[in-house]
Amino acid sequence: MQNSYSHSLSTNKQLTQKSVNRCFNGEQHYYSHESTSTKTSMTFSIYLPDEALAGRRCPAILYLSGLTCNADNVTHKAHFQQKCSELGMILIAPDTSPRSSEESDVPNDDRYFVGQGASYYVDATQAPWSDNFNMQSYIVDELYDLLRSEFPIHSIGVTGHSMGGHGALLLGFKFPSKFVSVSALSPVCAASESAWGVAAYTEYFGDDESLWAQADASKMIEKVGQQYSSILVDQGGADNFLAEGQLQTSKLQEACTKANQPLTLRYQAGHDHSYYFIQTVISDHIEHHWHMAQLS
Amino acid sequence: MQNSYSHSLSTNKQLTQKSVNRCFNGEQHYYSHESTSTKTSMTFSIYLPDEALAGRRCPAILYLSGLTCNADNVTHKAHFQQKCSELGMILIAPDTSPRSSEESDVPNDDRYFVGQGASYYVDATQAPWSDNFNMQSYIVDELYDLLRSEFPIHSIGVTGHSMGGHGALLLGFKFPSKFVSVSALSPVCAASESAWGVAAYTEYFGDDESLWAQADASKMIEKVGQQYSSILVDQGGADNFLAEGQLQTSKLQEACTKANQPLTLRYQAGHDHSYYFIQTVISDHIEHHWHMAQLS
Repeated sequence: MQNSYSHSLSTNKQLTQKSVNRCFNGEQHYYSHESTSTKTSMTFSIYLPDEALAGRRCPAILYLSGLTCNADNVTHKAHFQQKCSELGMILIAPDTSPRSSEESDVPNDDRYFVGQGASYYVDATQAPWSDNFNMQSYIVDELYDLLRSEFPIHSIGVTGHSMGGHGALLLGFKFPSKFVSVSALSPVCAASESAWGVAAYTEYFGDDESLWAQADASKMIEKVGQQYSSILVDQGGADNFLAEGQLQTSKLQEACTKANQPLTLRYQAGHDHSYYFIQTVISDHIEHHWHMAQLS
Repeated sequence: MQNSYSHSLSTNKQLTQKSVNRCFNGEQHYYSHESTSTKTSMTFSIYLPDEALAGRRCPAILYLSGLTCNADNVTHKAHFQQKCSELGMILIAPDTSPRSSEESDVPNDDRYFVGQGASYYVDATQAPWSDNFNMQSYIVDELYDLLRSEFPIHSIGVTGHSMGGHGALLLGFKFPSKFVSVSALSPVCAASESAWGVAAYTEYFGDDESLWAQADASKMIEKVGQQYSSILVDQGGADNFLAEGQLQTSKLQEACTKANQPLTLRYQAGHDHSYYFIQTVISDHIEHHWHMAQLS
């Protein structure tokens, strides 16, 4: 009976391990590190199946969370661990933005869709945001390189929920050389035309319209054309944010049609925007990324 | 595409529906009601698979949570919904004790293992607890009858975690006519001899030793003998509360041996006391209760 497992980090001292919990045939870890992109300490969770703990390179999924979330929500509530354990996949959940702490004072906004918890995974160009809100660089450069150097990663796919679904689609198509697969759950499909995104981009980009277009997933897909043999998107049919016009799923569908980008788009009857929906479909997304990793 | 589901409650007005979320092929509901046992409002969650929503009687599991928990912890973090959806099972998660509110002032204690969140599922006999802390009566009489009258339930099994595992074993063997199956995760197996239970029972029962023995799962099993064709217990091998002597799993094993009660007891290597462990084994427990319900 083996009672403990450990992951031997390299001698690189960039990561501070915060917790380890065994879960299915693997371990759920949390780490923090000092980020040069955000000038703050950043925390992420990573699920490591036993194959990875034994040092074998595994396909990985970067999961980008939505408005108001940090790494905890998906790690506690989405139940990705069982399928990752079955398939031998790594899943990394970063925070959604830099945060204020005793060491660093990060700008914020009273609206939940702007500021801390609401980065939209872009690099802000306007004060006071541009000092810290560089989540595009954090995800696709800094964290990406850190993960590849510290963990036995074979390839990386990107997914996310809501504002994180926007992030997954945007970064997946803006930096296709970084990712082998893309999927999204209930994504904000046209951030530059949604009420949430208009409020945020007014703060982060001011009136520079070219930056707005580069931060809109549907416009990015239309611009760059097909990048993946298929992408998977799930959307709850009873999602109040779909009804309110924040998600604009039809614009993603139109963009993929124009770009000749194969899209599997599933409207799931009766499902809302919550983690009850995420847990319902997450296994299919993990399998999608696993299959794409086998082809890469 | 069907976008909404509904559960038609009977005209009995005892229940107030607090929320409904679609999850897998079923719905996660929350209800509150005024309890005569605890003299407070009580909240429970119930997962209803589509079979139950269509009015077909389904086997049900009563899940009793551990110290400090309410209905939310297991409902958000244990991920029982997928397996319940697959098998067509109902799962009910009550609160762990009465709670203070604007309408009712319930006694409490600074220690997390006594008072609100720490009922041990017994009927207290000592002031100030005996007015409200009647969770045995609440579970096996009041809530039990309410569930059977309001939802299409075929039969009820009982399970739980930690202090709730104690509750499942205790109530399952004290009231075997009520339940068709029993299992437990990381249970407190001998509450009257654990530091947590000694502190709680000193408050709830004073020095009446006969009441202490009737509130100890291992002693109850030894007293009443075999009641079920088998029971299932999972215990994390790296559980700090096992090491500290709060759980005393070996006493359960000895009691079952003496009682000729078949026990499947599994020590899971490397696993701790957390919901990461619960989610790892919960599907096996749901299948155990499902199989027992088929035989009932």
